[in-house]
Amino acid sequence: MYATRHLARRFAFSQTRRLSHVPSNAPALKSATSEDLAHFSKILPQTCILSTLPSLNNTPSTTTIEELAPFNNDWMNKYHGKSEMVLRPRTTEEVAQIVKWCNEKRIGVVPQGGNTGLVGGSVPTKNEVVINLANMNKVRSFDPVSGILVADAGCILESLNEYLAPHNHIVPLDLGAKGSCQIGGNVSTNAGGLRLLRYGSLHGSVLGLEVVLPDGTILNQLSSLRKDNTGYDLKQLFIGAEGTLGIVTGVSILAAPAPQATSNVILALPKFDNVLPLFTKVKRQLSEILSAFEFFDREVYDLAVKHNQGRALNADDVEGAECFVLVETSGGNREHDEAKLNALLENLLESDEPLINTGVLSQNPAQFASLWAIREGLTEAVSKEGKAYKYDISIPLKAFKEVVDTTREHLRSQGLLRHDAVKNVVGYGHVGDGNLHLNIVAAAYTPEIEAALEPFVYELVGKYKGSVSAEHGIGVMKTHALHYSKDEVNIEWMRRIKNLFDPHGIMNPGKVLP
Amino acid sequence: MYATRHLARRFAFSQTRRLSHVPSNAPALKSATSEDLAHFSKILPQTCILSTLPSLNNTPSTTTIEELAPFNNDWMNKYHGKSEMVLRPRTTEEVAQIVKWCNEKRIGVVPQGGNTGLVGGSVPTKNEVVINLANMNKVRSFDPVSGILVADAGCILESLNEYLAPHNHIVPLDLGAKGSCQIGGNVSTNAGGLRLLRYGSLHGSVLGLEVVLPDGTILNQLSSLRKDNTGYDLKQLFIGAEGTLGIVTGVSILAAPAPQATSNVILALPKFDNVLPLFTKVKRQLSEILSAFEFFDREVYDLAVKHNQGRALNADDVEGAECFVLVETSGGNREHDEAKLNALLENLLESDEPLINTGVLSQNPAQFASLWAIREGLTEAVSKEGKAYKYDISIPLKAFKEVVDTTREHLRSQGLLRHDAVKNVVGYGHVGDGNLHLNIVAAAYTPEIEAALEPFVYELVGKYKGSVSAEHGIGVMKTHALHYSKDEVNIEWMRRIKNLFDPHGIMNPGKVLP
Ligand SMILES: Cc1cc2nc3c(=O)[nH]c(=O)nc-3n(C[C@H](O)[C@H](O)[C@H](O)COP(=O)(O)OP(=O)(O)OC[C@H]3O[C@@H](n4cnc5c(N)ncnc54)[C@H](O)[C@@H]3O)c2cc1C
Ligand SMILES: Cc1cc2nc3c(=O)[nH]c(=O)nc-3n(C[C@H](O)[C@H](O)[C@H](O)COP(=O)(O)OP(=O)(O)OC[C@H]3O[C@@H](n4cnc5c(N)ncnc54)[C@H](O)[C@@H]3O)c2cc1C
Repeated sequence: MYATRHLARRFAFSQTRRLSHVPSNAPALKSATSEDLAHFSKILPQTCILSTLPSLNNTPSTTTIEELAPFNNDWMNKYHGKSEMVLRPRTTEEVAQIVKWCNEKRIGVVPQGGNTGLVGGSVPTKNEVVINLANMNKVRSFDPVSGILVADAGCILESLNEYLAPHNHIVPLDLGAKGSCQIGGNVSTNAGGLRLLRYGSLHGSVLGLEVVLPDGTILNQLSSLRKDNTGYDLKQLFIGAEGTLGIVTGVSILAAPAPQATSNVILALPKFDNVLPLFTKVKRQLSEILSAFEFFDREVYDLAVKHNQGRALNADDVEGAECFVLVETSGGNREHDEAKLNALLENLLESDEPLINTGVLSQNPAQFASLWAIREGLTEAVSKEGKAYKYDISIPLKAFKEVVDTTREHLRSQGLLRHDAVKNVVGYGHVGDGNLHLNIVAAAYTPEIEAALEPFVYELVGKYKGSVSAEHGIGVMKTHALHYSKDEVNIEWMRRIKNLFDPHGIMNPGKVLP
Repeated sequence: MYATRHLARRFAFSQTRRLSHVPSNAPALKSATSEDLAHFSKILPQTCILSTLPSLNNTPSTTTIEELAPFNNDWMNKYHGKSEMVLRPRTTEEVAQIVKWCNEKRIGVVPQGGNTGLVGGSVPTKNEVVINLANMNKVRSFDPVSGILVADAGCILESLNEYLAPHNHIVPLDLGAKGSCQIGGNVSTNAGGLRLLRYGSLHGSVLGLEVVLPDGTILNQLSSLRKDNTGYDLKQLFIGAEGTLGIVTGVSILAAPAPQATSNVILALPKFDNVLPLFTKVKRQLSEILSAFEFFDREVYDLAVKHNQGRALNADDVEGAECFVLVETSGGNREHDEAKLNALLENLLESDEPLINTGVLSQNPAQFASLWAIREGLTEAVSKEGKAYKYDISIPLKAFKEVVDTTREHLRSQGLLRHDAVKNVVGYGHVGDGNLHLNIVAAAYTPEIEAALEPFVYELVGKYKGSVSAEHGIGVMKTHALHYSKDEVNIEWMRRIKNLFDPHGIMNPGKVLP
């Protein structure tokens, strides 16, 4: 398997770099043993322990390696751990006891939520103990007046939304993985997703966290206050820390009132240059009801059609379109929202030099879903077409096309743009957030293509002072690329924070920091 | 003066507590000398230095103590420093050089913005060097497409709003002190203010910071990206750190599109119990255009009228009202917004058991301003009536009245509720944010009243798991009360963060941590 080879190479690299930074007194991590298993059996019932290790008196385990596979392999099946023990605590206290023991014994642990992360952060790099939060799945409280929801970290995002629906509220976060990902995983990856344009980032909407620190201390910041300026806002450090500073066990978050009406439209643009003026105009005219502004280029749209993602637009509607934009509105009054959207469309179509060729407006919930299906199906279309190299980057909006084109030209100049190597170079993403998903679709993963892409793409991102990871995080996948987005001073201070919280380096080792 | 005596007492207390925590190797801070002055004269031109110290060859300074007074005394004229040196650097590089020197020489520094803080954080406790940011007042960039504004920390909030106006954007933050406070000060206090309900907290809208750390290192996190998940979000630590971890020199913030239409209404409620159902209803019906929901009780309204704040409502409108709510809408379409607001009012008045007695709706900009003037004039009315003990607390919405009433009853039971002692106990604040301003208006500040109020009020807040400082911060005023909102684990971890960034304790000494 190429993925594995590739992984091994990268680890070797990151190992070398890491070594030079780890304080010399940091001991190597130990593997969990049958003794540890015996200890955990005192904390947890057997139903909460999965381990292939024999018992203390050498009785072989009845658990098979296959049973551990879902916890050892990531969503992309690209990263593969060798953990022999998965623990599924039910309470914060249990998490604390487990972590305390691991810290004393210098055993590495991997906090795991829904295991939907896309950068290999949620599975072991070696044989660390996996602490899976799935059993911590209760809503602790919800106040319909303030909208403040307090929940166990292991609650699944979609379940929380279902819980909130009868209270006319929604989680201020939505993403394709909602059926599996957990709120604790969302917080730990600072997930962005489809509602960010409207509801802002988790740094604003998360009001409190309960965290088990690497030494087993419980840091209770589970405030259910909207405003609290009493000292440093420590919880912020754990938002996006990808489980390297502690285990999030509880989350307090400000739910948003459910919109009364939603609508969407796909606009076809004659040229990319129109995207920016269009965005400005749309923001201005729809203002507070604008909830998504998603961009996708013609090439990826054609892939979506080819692979039956959503219902294709009419030939007339796509003719001469260089790219598309999906606009969504969510508001408190259907009539008002439709009036605003119609006024926008008229204004767009009637202008002297129209920014758009056509617009396809959904007229009912089925059409609404079908327009979203095109946008949401792009990822799948890409993966059906071939092997995808995925770059989740933030760059200035105006550079979106340039980055896609430059990458394509670069591959062409290397002689790699041909049907048996790189088939497509496509771009789509959340224009509203400056977040471009650059996808290079190849016939197969090859070292040659990868060498042509990296560090080329990261250097391109660096040139625009962009981010090499807009929303997916660093995990193990991008530790070597962190320096393209963060300078040495920043990385050094991250390292100091890491050492402060986790001096023995037990917490999700090998992730985030190079 | 009572204020001074009171201050001295509190310091003695916090000093004792602090000593037991400072690592034993932390040296005492030194006073700045003529030698230091000579050094700073090499970094800054004379126009940027104000000092009463003699020069190295003993020439007396021409600067008077009076000239330093505005930098030594806080906005309330309650806290008084004795700094002999105010530095006003013009660049980040200059700030870095100054701080580096102070760190090496163990000289305490106080970062100062507009000096409008309300907890004594912005003035020295002794004779620390004041580093005032007023000369760093340039906008660095603004991108009207993304709405991202990058500015020097010393830019005055109102000036930034004026800068943005022609670009149809606003700073997502507004407060009474806008004409003097600086964006760096706002960030450092994590200021809330009047737009928080709509635009969320600075933890969400600040996208990047440039910070000079206590050792003089420049930490550049001045990202102008909306999304960036590359490692720990270190900048968050400085939001609300009140200048104790470093000096903010640059701020990148997401400006909001300017609303096309705003409107407001004051609703008179027969009883406090109606506030919560009203809030729920208003949130539901106005949803995304609701931009303020401000509460004030009858007693403070009467004070506002007595002291001519805004134009009094008609006698009919206030008759039988136990409290009031000011509702503001900001939206993209005047017609739609008015329709929504009118529908709400009709719905409220026509119901069988109306939640409100009456509503006074502004019909034009002058009336809009005049309704706001009542709400914004409450603070002034209170201070005209007498000496105010001010508590800026977060508690569950439903406890607002209970806290005001309990405090009043407590004072009554102590025999202190009489015209020559406590005259009024009033409450107002941002219901939408759970933020209550509890004000005790007395004939004079007396130790007796203070003893009756503290720790009584803080304990009350603690009982509701509230915050002893919703938005103003801790400064020197509330270090002794921090433990009512944060447990020992939290305070201990704050201290570790402080020691990590500022091992010599030079950065705003005596503030935030007990
Ligand atoms: C189909 C699909 C669509 C996606 N769309 C988006 C998108 O639009 N936007 C976006 O930002 N991301 C997206 N993602 C990736 C996203 O990061 C994850 O889906 C999600 O946020 C991770 O949650 P999880 O519970 O699965 O965490 P995991 O995958 O289990 O873990 C992710 C990281 O967080 C850590 N972690 C998990 N739980 C905890 C905890 N309780 N305490 C401490 N650390 C913890 C893990 O150690 C790991 O480093 C998508 C993924 C998929 C598969
Ligand atoms: C009339 C009035 C109304 C107010 N209304 C509100 C309100 O509605 N909501 C609210 O939250 N607050 C309010 N405040 C208080 C509020 O905290 C301050 O007005 C403001 O945010 C502080 O900004 P400043 O520039 O004046 O900071 P300063 O007062 O100069 O400093 C405040 C703190 O921040 C630190 N600091 C300042 N600048 C920097 C910097 N560049 N780097 C590091 N540290 C720095 C100081 O050391 C100090 O600890 C009000 C104050 C007044 C006088």
